[in-house]
Amino acid sequence: MTDISASDLTLEEKASLTSGADFWTTKAVERAGIPSVMMTDGPHGLRKQSGGTDHLGLASSVPATCFPPAVGIGSSFDPEIIARVGAAIGVEAAIEDVAVVLGPGINIKRSPLCGRNFEYFSEDPLVSGILGAASVRGVQSQGVGTSLKHFAANNQEFDRMRASSDVDPRPLREIYLRGFERVVKDASPWTVMCSYNKLNGVWTSEDPWLLTSVLRDDWGFDGLVVSDWGAVNDRVTGVAAGLDLEMPASGGRTDAQLVDAVRAGTLAESVLDTAAGRAIDLVRKAGERPAVAGPLDVDAHHALAREAAGRSIVLLKNDGGVLPLAATQKVAVIGAFATEPRFQGAGSSLINPTRVDAALDELRAVGGGNVTYAPGFAVAGGAIAASGRSADDLRAEAVTVAAAADVAVVLLGLPAAEESEGFDREHIDLPATQLALLDAVIAANPRTVVVLSNGGVVALPFADRVPAIVETWLLGQAGGGAVADVLYGVVNPSGKLTETVPVRVEDNPSFGNFPGEFGHVRYGEGLLVGYRWYDAKGLEVTYPFGHGLSYTTFEYGAATASIGADGDILVRVDVTNTGDRDGREIVQVYVAPAQSIVQRAPRELKAFSSVALAAGETRAVELVVRREDLAYWDVRVDRWVVEGGTYAVEVAASSRDIRSSVSVEVAGDDVQQDLTMNSSVGDVLAHPVAGPIVMGALGGFMSELSGADSSAASMIPDDDAMQKMMASFPIGRLVGFPGVEVTYEQVEQLIAAANAGVLPAE
Amino acid sequence: MTDISASDLTLEEKASLTSGADFWTTKAVERAGIPSVMMTDGPHGLRKQSGGTDHLGLASSVPATCFPPAVGIGSSFDPEIIARVGAAIGVEAAIEDVAVVLGPGINIKRSPLCGRNFEYFSEDPLVSGILGAASVRGVQSQGVGTSLKHFAANNQEFDRMRASSDVDPRPLREIYLRGFERVVKDASPWTVMCSYNKLNGVWTSEDPWLLTSVLRDDWGFDGLVVSDWGAVNDRVTGVAAGLDLEMPASGGRTDAQLVDAVRAGTLAESVLDTAAGRAIDLVRKAGERPAVAGPLDVDAHHALAREAAGRSIVLLKNDGGVLPLAATQKVAVIGAFATEPRFQGAGSSLINPTRVDAALDELRAVGGGNVTYAPGFAVAGGAIAASGRSADDLRAEAVTVAAAADVAVVLLGLPAAEESEGFDREHIDLPATQLALLDAVIAANPRTVVVLSNGGVVALPFADRVPAIVETWLLGQAGGGAVADVLYGVVNPSGKLTETVPVRVEDNPSFGNFPGEFGHVRYGEGLLVGYRWYDAKGLEVTYPFGHGLSYTTFEYGAATASIGADGDILVRVDVTNTGDRDGREIVQVYVAPAQSIVQRAPRELKAFSSVALAAGETRAVELVVRREDLAYWDVRVDRWVVEGGTYAVEVAASSRDIRSSVSVEVAGDDVQQDLTMNSSVGDVLAHPVAGPIVMGALGGFMSELSGADSSAASMIPDDDAMQKMMASFPIGRLVGFPGVEVTYEQVEQLIAAANAGVLPAE
Repeated sequence: MTDISASDLTLEEKASLTSGADFWTTKAVERAGIPSVMMTDGPHGLRKQSGGTDHLGLASSVPATCFPPAVGIGSSFDPEIIARVGAAIGVEAAIEDVAVVLGPGINIKRSPLCGRNFEYFSEDPLVSGILGAASVRGVQSQGVGTSLKHFAANNQEFDRMRASSDVDPRPLREIYLRGFERVVKDASPWTVMCSYNKLNGVWTSEDPWLLTSVLRDDWGFDGLVVSDWGAVNDRVTGVAAGLDLEMPASGGRTDAQLVDAVRAGTLAESVLDTAAGRAIDLVRKAGERPAVAGPLDVDAHHALAREAAGRSIVLLKNDGGVLPLAATQKVAVIGAFATEPRFQGAGSSLINPTRVDAALDELRAVGGGNVTYAPGFAVAGGAIAASGRSADDLRAEAVTVAAAADVAVVLLGLPAAEESEGFDREHIDLPATQLALLDAVIAANPRTVVVLSNGGVVALPFADRVPAIVETWLLGQAGGGAVADVLYGVVNPSGKLTETVPVRVEDNPSFGNFPGEFGHVRYGEGLLVGYRWYDAKGLEVTYPFGHGLSYTTFEYGAATASIGADGDILVRVDVTNTGDRDGREIVQVYVAPAQSIVQRAPRELKAFSSVALAAGETRAVELVVRREDLAYWDVRVDRWVVEGGTYAVEVAASSRDIRSSVSVEVAGDDVQQDLTMNSSVGDVLAHPVAGPIVMGALGGFMSELSGADSSAASMIPDDDAMQKMMASFPIGRLVGFPGVEVTYEQVEQLIAAANAGVLPAE
Repeated sequence: MTDISASDLTLEEKASLTSGADFWTTKAVERAGIPSVMMTDGPHGLRKQSGGTDHLGLASSVPATCFPPAVGIGSSFDPEIIARVGAAIGVEAAIEDVAVVLGPGINIKRSPLCGRNFEYFSEDPLVSGILGAASVRGVQSQGVGTSLKHFAANNQEFDRMRASSDVDPRPLREIYLRGFERVVKDASPWTVMCSYNKLNGVWTSEDPWLLTSVLRDDWGFDGLVVSDWGAVNDRVTGVAAGLDLEMPASGGRTDAQLVDAVRAGTLAESVLDTAAGRAIDLVRKAGERPAVAGPLDVDAHHALAREAAGRSIVLLKNDGGVLPLAATQKVAVIGAFATEPRFQGAGSSLINPTRVDAALDELRAVGGGNVTYAPGFAVAGGAIAASGRSADDLRAEAVTVAAAADVAVVLLGLPAAEESEGFDREHIDLPATQLALLDAVIAANPRTVVVLSNGGVVALPFADRVPAIVETWLLGQAGGGAVADVLYGVVNPSGKLTETVPVRVEDNPSFGNFPGEFGHVRYGEGLLVGYRWYDAKGLEVTYPFGHGLSYTTFEYGAATASIGADGDILVRVDVTNTGDRDGREIVQVYVAPAQSIVQRAPRELKAFSSVALAAGETRAVELVVRREDLAYWDVRVDRWVVEGGTYAVEVAASSRDIRSSVSVEVAGDDVQQDLTMNSSVGDVLAHPVAGPIVMGALGGFMSELSGADSSAASMIPDDDAMQKMMASFPIGRLVGFPGVEVTYEQVEQLIAAANAGVLPAE
């Protein structure tokens, strides 16, 4: 089919290529030799329906390796491990002859309440973009396509198929689109999946600005845009806007609409040709992948899943060296999650795992008879719940077990029913039963380690009352082993937080706007998402963005920063592993201009690197801040602008643990704007040509305003105040004010001359 | 001129009537017997230029009584005292033959940083509306017009002549327009002044939605709309939108534009007739006022100013009965404001007072030789500053004076240069010199009373370290006497806060959005303005909205609430003055529905009453919550809707001091909406006709989704989760999903039938 193009097809055939055959596959055009290809859900493993393509198949699927979801693996801050996992998923897809894995999801975690946060990487667009690009590169390295999703501003599940995300231009570009831009430019995903929601009142599936102007014209995307499953509102409008493929099948109904629209002249056939051409391109790319024979090497992929899970764990607290555990210690493992692990979230990303490790088994594999166990509480749907034991009984047993041990390891987490695609959480608290259990265990044994399993951030009201907290997020099928690896120090934890842990959900920037009502959600916090908000407001947090400990310690030298030939900032810092264990440190670079004409967060992450350092090793770490990442979106000229001036470059172990700070001079982009009659006096005075002339013409007015009449108090306190007041006055409005000695026409001439760069005739 | 109408005038004459003759007066049409009338700035006194009407006159003006600005008198929560002051201003205007006093200003105090907050009443629209209406009634009772300003959403000074206030429909209607609506409906101001800014991208001076649809069609306004001085961007567009009068003069330039537009057919002459007719109406109303002979009774108005100032003072704290002072106590008065009072804000509202009382003089009039004084710090522009004494010297003297006294009274405040029309504040801190002085005084004498003079809220970091704080705001020319009255107990303080005193400016809801950039400010906090935010976020505040103490105490009985015949809530509560002094209590009623389908603040002020109670007296206080004030703005139907159900009615001494809480059942308005293909499954299931049928059709799909296949983990955790997920699915998008056993056409028929209220044929 290498030479087939849309022009070889009938109108009906072209229309048919741009919607699905069923739930998972595209339509073939056998006459033209165009085969059908299959897409499956992802992104942390393959969810290929086992019941055949005409089955709804929202339940059972072919067993596949369940890698850590994005919430986990994102904590690695490491594109390399994410690309390796992506490649493994690509292999599994290839074995199953799947053309496209639907992922990665890189939406911003705007609120911890979003039910689907476990599928996303971060509250920060740089993290989302770099890690999302790594995932795409990994999968596509195997000749399998990806679908970057959910494009765009889909940051909640509540009313997700109808609500309009109402976002101002700067936060839209700088926070919500920036990660997508990076993945598209750096990794060229085969497809982009438009989201269910509206963006500023327009369905994303019908938004020509989003799907064409931004995605293709600005960013150069040349792949296919597929609808999220059921996201098409009006097919014809969608295709005209840049939507190439409707999924799932519409039973031919909307294909006929396209044909009718072309025949009626309301849709240009060339537009349909373009969409069909992209569908053909996709099928062609899929066809270029050589067949991969199975079977899947289950053990090797499980081992990779365990490695990735180990990299996903964030050691939040470890006072007094309570961790790592020694195999000789008596360890009380408490919590039903030890035998009934929560390792992934619910919804379309739910994998049917090849196997599942339980933490208790893995801990006993190291600690043997020194490990005792009590479930402590029941998890809905689990064996403990089925046993019918009372909460009091379970708690009493746990207290007894904890009291008899050297250390209590309490596994807490969110029930599966609380976080899922399709609805949001209502709070960020752990279940009261679990918290009560923990209190009882702490009372019995203060050497208590909390191990958390949760896809979305939870409040940690006990953070001051336990010596150690291990945030494991959702770790995939090999998480049980990874927990044992970290607790016993086989793996030195190295994950850091891609999302702030707030003290209270009320502190979150979206609180009060999230999730909106009657079809609209206002992104009222603007740019101040995540740590940008907590820092700007000076709010206390439980654990800051970028935080994570190790069993070793790292010392940072004095950083240096310089400007490279392409305008990037080159940052260099010596980092030393000052402990006696090998480890990894995630070195972070935050940047902020010293002064700005626009709003800025106190600091923004602009580069990071996960660095492996042997005990005692020093390495010169080099990080590059791309010049383009310094830019803000300038609404005056509707483009990215790098502001010139001094920038603070902070090399940090977390967003609130700055280790070395330097400054660097950045050359700015030119933003020249014509003066108008609504330019302010300040704007005009600052103009090299018009400024001096206007100052002369306004002289009398200014002096009169500042109160020459000594018989009364001056209306304006002082000259400084007067200047502040007058600076924002539109120049055209001053004409006619007494004391202003120019006519309206003279000001118009002056402005025209200033814009032309010439002085007007005196 | 009683029978003149626009139809008697030439096109040029009509155009000329709709812009000013100069800075302060309208144009006469002598041929038709239409005189010129004068407007002057207000609103807390008359600012009539002394230099004649062709003088810019932004400095000197005719002496007039300077009453407390809105920030002060608003603290009375008392329409009666405000109407009396308004009537006095009306008298002064009548004596000066002024037709319209430009005020009141009732914009919402969105941020404490707004430089013009001293001209506004409150962060709450009910307070702004009720007190603004009282002011209008008072002035207009004297046959003098008012100009309700600044219409609308003008809540900052930064870039005030260009920036667009970007506000969503609910906060716009429920917070920013609600007070204007009340004043227009209750008090019929002669004129409304459109603001400088844009609203959602449209100049308010050119906004037909604001000036015509809302103001006239919705609210029934039949007066004249005047531009703020210099607010006209495009005159023709403005007149077409509903702007009747441009001020100040344009020198004929824009009149000619109107004439040209009518001749060119781009502006209907009838539109100009309407505007000119309203100008004639205004002149006619002004002419109906009988001439009032002077001179002004300066003493009587000064006495009223002192009474009003006494009602403006808020006693924030009074531990251990340090206040009131006794005349026999040795009192150290400290602070240059004692001799150089700050009593009003800068800008167009600045009055040239008939006289000014200094607090020191007035305190000595009571305490005589027991009152000592040290300036403590210098105020810019004052005599102390001119003396050149160092801060250390001033502080040392103050410490000596304080140490020798029984009580230190420290007068702190904002310098005049920090708050003015025309620019915003950059922080909410008192000057560091003053804070350092206070610390030194406290160390020398812990019995320290802080007396504050400030137009905008200031942070009170010393609130825990002094026994008493008296917030006097800006008190007008008789403030010095009022301070003495309150400190010595001649007047029992009764003011309460119309604005929250936050711990930090960062806690304010607009922080992060205020004041915007590049011509836009996003009202991102939406409905959660002022106490609505602090309560919703559970934030600590220094002093809450509605707080204020007295030298006596008040006890509240159990409240009752019932629904009146017109749907209003009638609230009744016994309030007892349990102390031994006469006093006033501001009784507040907060209301919130127990449950709501829309976002609600935890409580909203819906009624208040300032009640005078003799020592020991009990009074049954009756308050009425208007049914219309229960309504939210429903964006689905674009109108006010009262939600049915149980409402909590809280009778309170402040927003955080609820004394009695009852509930009442409110009948709801009907909001019937047609189903569409984008109605959610939840919407459809809730429909009495369509619901049961759709449930049947979806049955197979729902059961398949919930995971009959036991060979794999269910994709969705449980049935409850499934229902939450499916409830938001648009009904039209489900068709074609496997398991859904209806066609798109069948659903369309079903919805049409449901909307028609009939069952479709089986």
